[in-house]
Amino acid sequence: MKIPYKIYLSEEEIPKAWYNIRADMKTDHRPMLNPATLKPVTAEDLSPVFCDELVKQELNDKDRFIEIPEEIRDFYKMYRPSPLVRAYCLEKALNTPAKIYYKYEGGNTSGSHKLNSAIAQAYYAKKQGMIGVTTETGAGQWGTALAMACGYFGIDCKVFMVKVSSEQKPYRKGVMETYGATVTPSPSDTTNIGRKILKENPNTGGSLGCAISEAVEVAVSTKGYRYVLGSVLNQVLIHQSIIGFETKAALEKYDEYPDIIIGCAGGGSNLGGLMAPFMAEKIAGKKAPYFIAVEPASCPSMTRGRFAYDFCDTGMVTPLAKMYTLGSSFIPAPNHAGGLRFHGMSPILSQLYHDGYLDEARAVGQLQIFEAAVMFARIEGLLPAPESAHAIRVAIDEALKCKETGKEKTILFGLSGMGNYDIGAYMQYNSGSLQDYIPTDEDLEKGFACLPNVEE
Amino acid sequence: MKIPYKIYLSEEEIPKAWYNIRADMKTDHRPMLNPATLKPVTAEDLSPVFCDELVKQELNDKDRFIEIPEEIRDFYKMYRPSPLVRAYCLEKALNTPAKIYYKYEGGNTSGSHKLNSAIAQAYYAKKQGMIGVTTETGAGQWGTALAMACGYFGIDCKVFMVKVSSEQKPYRKGVMETYGATVTPSPSDTTNIGRKILKENPNTGGSLGCAISEAVEVAVSTKGYRYVLGSVLNQVLIHQSIIGFETKAALEKYDEYPDIIIGCAGGGSNLGGLMAPFMAEKIAGKKAPYFIAVEPASCPSMTRGRFAYDFCDTGMVTPLAKMYTLGSSFIPAPNHAGGLRFHGMSPILSQLYHDGYLDEARAVGQLQIFEAAVMFARIEGLLPAPESAHAIRVAIDEALKCKETGKEKTILFGLSGMGNYDIGAYMQYNSGSLQDYIPTDEDLEKGFACLPNVEE
Repeated sequence: MKIPYKIYLSEEEIPKAWYNIRADMKTDHRPMLNPATLKPVTAEDLSPVFCDELVKQELNDKDRFIEIPEEIRDFYKMYRPSPLVRAYCLEKALNTPAKIYYKYEGGNTSGSHKLNSAIAQAYYAKKQGMIGVTTETGAGQWGTALAMACGYFGIDCKVFMVKVSSEQKPYRKGVMETYGATVTPSPSDTTNIGRKILKENPNTGGSLGCAISEAVEVAVSTKGYRYVLGSVLNQVLIHQSIIGFETKAALEKYDEYPDIIIGCAGGGSNLGGLMAPFMAEKIAGKKAPYFIAVEPASCPSMTRGRFAYDFCDTGMVTPLAKMYTLGSSFIPAPNHAGGLRFHGMSPILSQLYHDGYLDEARAVGQLQIFEAAVMFARIEGLLPAPESAHAIRVAIDEALKCKETGKEKTILFGLSGMGNYDIGAYMQYNSGSLQDYIPTDEDLEKGFACLPNVEE
Repeated sequence: MKIPYKIYLSEEEIPKAWYNIRADMKTDHRPMLNPATLKPVTAEDLSPVFCDELVKQELNDKDRFIEIPEEIRDFYKMYRPSPLVRAYCLEKALNTPAKIYYKYEGGNTSGSHKLNSAIAQAYYAKKQGMIGVTTETGAGQWGTALAMACGYFGIDCKVFMVKVSSEQKPYRKGVMETYGATVTPSPSDTTNIGRKILKENPNTGGSLGCAISEAVEVAVSTKGYRYVLGSVLNQVLIHQSIIGFETKAALEKYDEYPDIIIGCAGGGSNLGGLMAPFMAEKIAGKKAPYFIAVEPASCPSMTRGRFAYDFCDTGMVTPLAKMYTLGSSFIPAPNHAGGLRFHGMSPILSQLYHDGYLDEARAVGQLQIFEAAVMFARIEGLLPAPESAHAIRVAIDEALKCKETGKEKTILFGLSGMGNYDIGAYMQYNSGSLQDYIPTDEDLEKGFACLPNVEE
């Protein structure tokens, strides 16, 4: 049976439930801690911030499957199932015996997999009778996805966008506003924390941590609002499991099974979603792929970070999570163009890596990334987001190893987003002005010094 | 049988031949004329400018079908068949008994249907042993598609981009360069015509006509180069027929047939492609849909233009074509953001309209366009190109008529491209700074006064 370039499932094959890998993990889950008491956070702690159903999902380590509400499935049908692509042209160009597949999540207007969770979070907010939600965005993938989701369900969406990003990427702001969202450059004078930061540092370009703090402040202080987050959290990995289940079903149609699964990892939602059903098999002791998480050498949380309790934000307002982290004060070099800037990593991915289920983390430089991205664009006709190009880089490297060894491995990677909003970064690369930046051990020590002191 | 949100064909169902509607048209084809002699152009006239195979296709009014070479079909498989979407959410929001379908051509990296012809033209250039091709681009859809196609086949691509556009849309330039194209703002000092124009008017922002003149000059004066064009020409409509044949096959799977077909029309390639197989049935005297071409009120070539011989460019260097035209000197108001700026119209579409096969041309204002575009984006989760929003506007209007009359019509429209590169125009609309501009009769008379004097 000839495998097509693109394998599509039918709409009936969209999963009817998300998968909660925490129910299967053979580990003592380290709970999130309340930073004031260092006690495990409770639903009561979280409910002023997050929607009730999302709090339940966040704390749920019992139920393997969580039913996807019909309204969310209907939205999924407008852009899912996403295609699983056999990269025939890339295989040919590399002259490799390997088979290369990628799951392409960039085909929707928001341009990335983030929409899978955004629509779920907007739905639960609407269902709980909320007027709207608040969030932060840096590069803008998450903000765009959330603006679309809120536009669809007719609820308000207040996005705090890192000021320097909103100036560098005015079009991201424009598309969010087109979907009805309010975009406020952060820090702003609309919040206490924003005014405080502006008073101390009037010319700051802002940071993700500051934007989180503003978004949380508005959510907890405004009746009818909750805060939502696009990665890192357990609930987000639950929603993103749809990527992996679609992928597995598509491969099974052609009796295929991956030897290697590769995903970029910033907060971890893309790789966490793609690998979910395959990781379930590994946890169950069955045959399973070799898993590789790819991160930028400029923000190497898994390869050079510590497995420790830390804040999820640089503003130190969130609960503490046990994860691989560079310290919440760590900020990648400003010339880092490739996304994946989060100082920590999904607690689920961190635990799986710590326990040896997630086989390898690999850090790559951004020049290698963009080289792979441009090569891929010309060969496969698809311009990837720089984040996704991390996975492309390693997929190409692994395929070239197969060429050397003659092994016919089946390589699967996640192409989490498209690069149409990242042309500025490509132009930097094309012009030769982009450089690699690798933090020194001293740089990292400064971040580790800020880790909270938690005895376990 | 429940009709899914998205109907996909298999790769085997990609048409194996393009359709040449000229072979079926019951009319005396008005040949293109050599402007110097006013005699019909010959293959010899055209061969210094266009690739040989494309000249053949341009002049071919005998062969109904032209086989699609295997190499082009392989490229098509990376992004085709494109989905035919049932707009369930839009139907529900409009509360209409109408069924609404759209063929979505914006899912590839170039963002529009232009890639269908770009890959064909690049292929024939490569096959003829050319080093590269030259072209012009305004907004950038065609230039991006051609850059991708040339990148894939490894031939050079020189794009002359209207200077003001290259300044307003630096990212379009960036993406073309990422695919290996050279982008020169036009007018430039690299050509005789460019230097002449700059000498006369050093501060000009350029025009499409000027860019065409520069691209043609470079093609005919550089060994191993030919000129290519993304719309208007017969060959382009041949390549774009793939849109219509895929659409028809997808509808037939569910026993559906459109009552109305709607497409935006600038040069005519998108509507020409979408309607091709349905128009063939109409020409053959069978039951057929009602065809509507939608154009901007600011550039109303079919609704207010003349059916006359005219130059295809404002530089008056091309052959003369018999078409609906506003005169080659006509330039839409600078605040026109919605694309479709060509002064003329595909000779094929023009003839079909003149002969009554293409039922209706309708002009719409750009405020109506963007209102429809934003509404569609929020309801269907897909941000359209402003050009494509012309078709959306009329599809919505027709669906609302069905609500009034209670008729369950089946409406099909072409969604030719995505709007990710058009956020600047959306921001103008969001801010209220966009206005309608409708040329006066006096404005039009100025354009008509430049029409060449051709006796038939």
